Amino acid sequence: MTDTLSRQQQIPATSGIRDDDRATVDTAELGELLLGRWAHVRRVARELAGRPELHKIEGLTHTDHRLRCFDQLHYLVGQKAVHRAFPKAFGGDEDNGGNIAGFEELVVADPSLQIKAGVQWGLFGSAVLHLGTEQHHEAWLPGIMNMEIPGCFAMTETGHGSDVASIATTATFDPETDEFVIHTPFRAAWKDYIGNGAIDGRAAVVFAQLITNGVNHGVHGLYVELRNEDGSFKPGVGGEDDGIKGGLNGIDNGRLHFTDVRVPRTNLLNRYGDVAADGTYSSTIASPGRRFFTMLGTLVQGRVSLDGAAVAASKLALTAAITYATQRRQFNASSNLREEVLMDYQRHQRRLLPRLAATYAAAFAHEELLEKFDGVFSGDQDTDEDRQDLETLAAALKPLSTWLALDTLQECREATGGQGFLIENRFASLRADLDVYVTFEGDNTVLLQLVAKRLLTDYAKEFKGVDFGVLARYAVSQAAGKTLHRSGLRRVAQTVADSGSGKKSALALRDEDTQRDLLTDRVQARVAAVAAVLRGAKGMSQEQSAALFNEHQNELIEVAHAHAELLQWEAFTRGLKKLQDPGTREVLTRLRDLFGLCLIEKDLAWFLMNGRLSSQRARTLDGYINRLLVKIRPHALDLVEAFGYGPEHVRSVVAGGAEQQRQKEAAEYTRRRRASGDAPIDEKTLLARAAKEKKARKAAKGRPQH
Amino acid sequence: MTDTLSRQQQIPATSGIRDDDRATVDTAELGELLLGRWAHVRRVARELAGRPELHKIEGLTHTDHRLRCFDQLHYLVGQKAVHRAFPKAFGGDEDNGGNIAGFEELVVADPSLQIKAGVQWGLFGSAVLHLGTEQHHEAWLPGIMNMEIPGCFAMTETGHGSDVASIATTATFDPETDEFVIHTPFRAAWKDYIGNGAIDGRAAVVFAQLITNGVNHGVHGLYVELRNEDGSFKPGVGGEDDGIKGGLNGIDNGRLHFTDVRVPRTNLLNRYGDVAADGTYSSTIASPGRRFFTMLGTLVQGRVSLDGAAVAASKLALTAAITYATQRRQFNASSNLREEVLMDYQRHQRRLLPRLAATYAAAFAHEELLEKFDGVFSGDQDTDEDRQDLETLAAALKPLSTWLALDTLQECREATGGQGFLIENRFASLRADLDVYVTFEGDNTVLLQLVAKRLLTDYAKEFKGVDFGVLARYAVSQAAGKTLHRSGLRRVAQTVADSGSGKKSALALRDEDTQRDLLTDRVQARVAAVAAVLRGAKGMSQEQSAALFNEHQNELIEVAHAHAELLQWEAFTRGLKKLQDPGTREVLTRLRDLFGLCLIEKDLAWFLMNGRLSSQRARTLDGYINRLLVKIRPHALDLVEAFGYGPEHVRSVVAGGAEQQRQKEAAEYTRRRRASGDAPIDEKTLLARAAKEKKARKAAKGRPQH
Repeated sequence: MTDTLSRQQQIPATSGIRDDDRATVDTAELGELLLGRWAHVRRVARELAGRPELHKIEGLTHTDHRLRCFDQLHYLVGQKAVHRAFPKAFGGDEDNGGNIAGFEELVVADPSLQIKAGVQWGLFGSAVLHLGTEQHHEAWLPGIMNMEIPGCFAMTETGHGSDVASIATTATFDPETDEFVIHTPFRAAWKDYIGNGAIDGRAAVVFAQLITNGVNHGVHGLYVELRNEDGSFKPGVGGEDDGIKGGLNGIDNGRLHFTDVRVPRTNLLNRYGDVAADGTYSSTIASPGRRFFTMLGTLVQGRVSLDGAAVAASKLALTAAITYATQRRQFNASSNLREEVLMDYQRHQRRLLPRLAATYAAAFAHEELLEKFDGVFSGDQDTDEDRQDLETLAAALKPLSTWLALDTLQECREATGGQGFLIENRFASLRADLDVYVTFEGDNTVLLQLVAKRLLTDYAKEFKGVDFGVLARYAVSQAAGKTLHRSGLRRVAQTVADSGSGKKSALALRDEDTQRDLLTDRVQARVAAVAAVLRGAKGMSQEQSAALFNEHQNELIEVAHAHAELLQWEAFTRGLKKLQDPGTREVLTRLRDLFGLCLIEKDLAWFLMNGRLSSQRARTLDGYINRLLVKIRPHALDLVEAFGYGPEHVRSVVAGGAEQQRQKEAAEYTRRRRASGDAPIDEKTLLARAAKEKKARKAAKGRPQH
Repeated sequence: MTDTLSRQQQIPATSGIRDDDRATVDTAELGELLLGRWAHVRRVARELAGRPELHKIEGLTHTDHRLRCFDQLHYLVGQKAVHRAFPKAFGGDEDNGGNIAGFEELVVADPSLQIKAGVQWGLFGSAVLHLGTEQHHEAWLPGIMNMEIPGCFAMTETGHGSDVASIATTATFDPETDEFVIHTPFRAAWKDYIGNGAIDGRAAVVFAQLITNGVNHGVHGLYVELRNEDGSFKPGVGGEDDGIKGGLNGIDNGRLHFTDVRVPRTNLLNRYGDVAADGTYSSTIASPGRRFFTMLGTLVQGRVSLDGAAVAASKLALTAAITYATQRRQFNASSNLREEVLMDYQRHQRRLLPRLAATYAAAFAHEELLEKFDGVFSGDQDTDEDRQDLETLAAALKPLSTWLALDTLQECREATGGQGFLIENRFASLRADLDVYVTFEGDNTVLLQLVAKRLLTDYAKEFKGVDFGVLARYAVSQAAGKTLHRSGLRRVAQTVADSGSGKKSALALRDEDTQRDLLTDRVQARVAAVAAVLRGAKGMSQEQSAALFNEHQNELIEVAHAHAELLQWEAFTRGLKKLQDPGTREVLTRLRDLFGLCLIEKDLAWFLMNGRLSSQRARTLDGYINRLLVKIRPHALDLVEAFGYGPEHVRSVVAGGAEQQRQKEAAEYTRRRRASGDAPIDEKTLLARAAKEKKARKAAKGRPQH
């Protein structure tokens, strides 16, 4: 966004920053690395997202914003931008990873567009594709792909959000007519927050408890027509508008309910469970629990793409805020002649650079998630274990990246002052739109509990047949060594299984192995500790064991959070090693160190209480982070430039160079007035001069008269 | 909002919560205490804020929202709601504290209304009142009070926000015509973000560098007419609309510039500085620096009322979220028959109750700030020291309460899931509107630096003439004892000045004195440490000393933050002691403990690294906080009820009881179906039954045949 020369000039001579020669950023190489395996798709998608036709127009009523987004979906169809994941037979590319990469870049144009497209093709379309079979594909995929059938993904109910298994809508098979009867038994069972639900949806995949021959076989998806051509509801279908939301107002979220709505038996999306004409239920998956999770698992891509979109939003915010911070000057602490650039203030560095580091970490982790996702969905690596690992990885990363996006957008908005609050600078707009990313497609808090459960399960597996208490104590008492990485999910007890590595008495915090050891050990030891306590639940009543778990719920979520941070740190570390240019690698290593050390700082009390760091060592951390900030600061602009977003993506007035222009004009004016001699003198200066003269007179008076 | 009986019923028998008899909340007494000294004003203001005429209508365009707020200002005039601070001679009450108390309650109706009213009467009107003299009062106060003159407070410029002293607009005296010439020399000097600036403002108090006889006497306010009756600009005045903002779109913020605009000499608001007809400048305050801060100091009420409004917003959010959390059920961990109430989940308690405690702390601290403010502005206690203390107190509390409001609104929104994102539940709306509270009327980060400077100055005063290094080491090495409280500002070095209190080896964290000691010591020791380092700046060049300060900027801000937290903790502690009812006092003491211990937990690493807490003691903290949460949980509803906001204020659909109604209906339906025998059986249950039968058959087969 800025040429190299002007960037160099922005580093004031007074800042005292010296850098060794090695550290420079090859933005081209770094940018290519960040684009990742689907760079070609991202380039195409970014070109598209840069077009004004797709940009959010601020200040529209929600009605107009909805109309605009609806039209934009048609535009995307025209641009062949949204069919990458669909079968080749229907004109798609069968490119799963590329599809997500392309989708998530839409957030740059308008988050409403990303999510509305996600509803149509990522949720509604994917449900037909992955839960349905050939007949369904042939009947509906073409219309879904070309927007002849705008549709809904009708899962969540007012009464049940996170707990999908408990939804109350029923689909009861009637063998007399060979039909399913879709029914909403009470108000809490209304489908709610359904994208395309208020206006646009013509059809929906409705999730309901499948009942046949008096047996409830659990949640299944059925294809149900909702509206006539003129937009009116089909008989038995009803609903209402969810109204205005905190953001994403380009999407018409709504509520839907069904009163004995009949659909043909064949409308059941029957890949994982089917009903014969006589009402007999059959499934390739015997366990109802496993069947449910397998079906839900096919829809993991929503989480994956939210993770990527959140990273993109953080990148946009940092590009704008850091660009502005290298131009804006305020207060003249070090010189009466010139004010300081914001980015040279330590606090400003503390506010922006750790978030820049975290965004890099989240970006590298997302790329790994995308590859894992592609491996599973392409069939290259799709064992049960792969699928479980993918789900756990998505459940771990999505919470961190979406919370990071909100936090980063807010910090950037505040760091940009009053400017940041103006909608023309986009921070507030993006933040409002991304707000719901932390609770939809899996509430972040609920997702982290899934991760915690997986950590406990894996931990228990490692120690099958071994006295649990002893090992737990062992794991807790030792400072951890290296661990293996398996499919994105850390095996928390690996150290114990392999061999204990020796305690390091003198930790060098900048050392990569030290950071890894500390962050790994934090997860391992805490999992071991909580597992040891929860083992007490064996033999307890359901009520008692639930109470025991609840007493450790907070700790479980914290452990899952720590685990996800470790995954990000590892992805960052692996990612930067792909860089060829030593200077770039040096800068990225510092940024990774900043990420790692800020994680340690945030949880420093744990490391101290548990003897992982001495007080002496811990006290050096703050100063070391401050020195890292100074070392990274000269590269801040390069590091956001490498994100590769142009002005057509950032679209933040504050980052457009007007600030520099204004300063130049002001400096020019002051210079001219001084030169012409008509600049007023300050009262302060005058008083100081008078005081000096008075002193001189006094001194002269006191001088002996000869 | 809910009657006592239903509240009791909401605590499930399974939660295992037992409470001793003493702890109950007398919501009437507690509510009265929270209403504070200006309870009568708050009651009147809340009645007004509950009227639909004043409520924000969501989804309006910013144009319509502005029109509505403009009309509402006239409505407020009609209700005599906004004149409490003005002189009795003009129909006011000369009630400064009451005025703020009344103003800040307007946030409940619509934050735009609060701020727009604040611009008209709190900033524009106050500037005329406090910076002007009798002639100005007579000329303009009546029109300002009755909205005949909608006006602006034109201080901030695009180029200078926080650094007001550096604004570049000039007011040059021309003795030939006895006029001031107001001029904007370049784009960066445009007034920006000016409320009422885009459309409504007919006049403004414009802040400019006052130049007469070739001398710049610094920033002064002048009364300048902006627009004609038809809304067009007066000659020489120009400007533009700031457009849509992240929130507060009921206010028409705009930019203003002046090209040689002439106003009579007497338009200078001349209370603190005047210019005679011959151009001679005079002031009762000799020091230009002190004069500037005295003038700015008269406008502190903006910060005071933002502090109060932020507390009110937190109260609203918690009332809605906690009410919902005691009704909403999700997941059935402890029983197959009934789902858990959200508020019984440990994590949910961790999310909401510490913020409830912090809101109580902020509320008690705000009441003290209000009394301090009233003391100064009523003239009862308005020495220079009182004024400085007031400013420091406002600068310390406003950042914490405004950040708390954003954090609380966001956590409540997330804790309410998808519901929380719907605008009908107000979390997202209030959050968007309050966003800018953290950077306007003094950027929070800049304010905390003012506090830090004051801490350093006071520290230096205490030790005048004493060897600094020795004392600093002394302060750092000792665990602090009691300290005196002076005028809202803690004397950080008091302990040292009085006498060192002995180290407590066995700290009981729930003990009030322990909490006070730990929190006080944290401020003292850190101030002493950073003061010792900064002392090195003596004798350095301006550039070097600025660099040294910058290297400790982050620490300075952290120390100021810690100081402000201590002030809140002390206000909470003093406040709860006014309660007569022992049960209420007991509950409030627990809540204060929760507040104090969460502060300590947040900074636990510091206490560990610096030997204030042993690792053993620190490890008990998490468990102790968890037990406190369980003890406070049964009183959560009472604690929000005591805030005293009715449904007409909360206006959050989610808290209106619909959730309970839906659950009742669902439970009734399930009961009916079970009774009628047509409820389907779960496949899971069926499988379990089959497995059991198979086992039984196998056992029968294996039995020896006789």
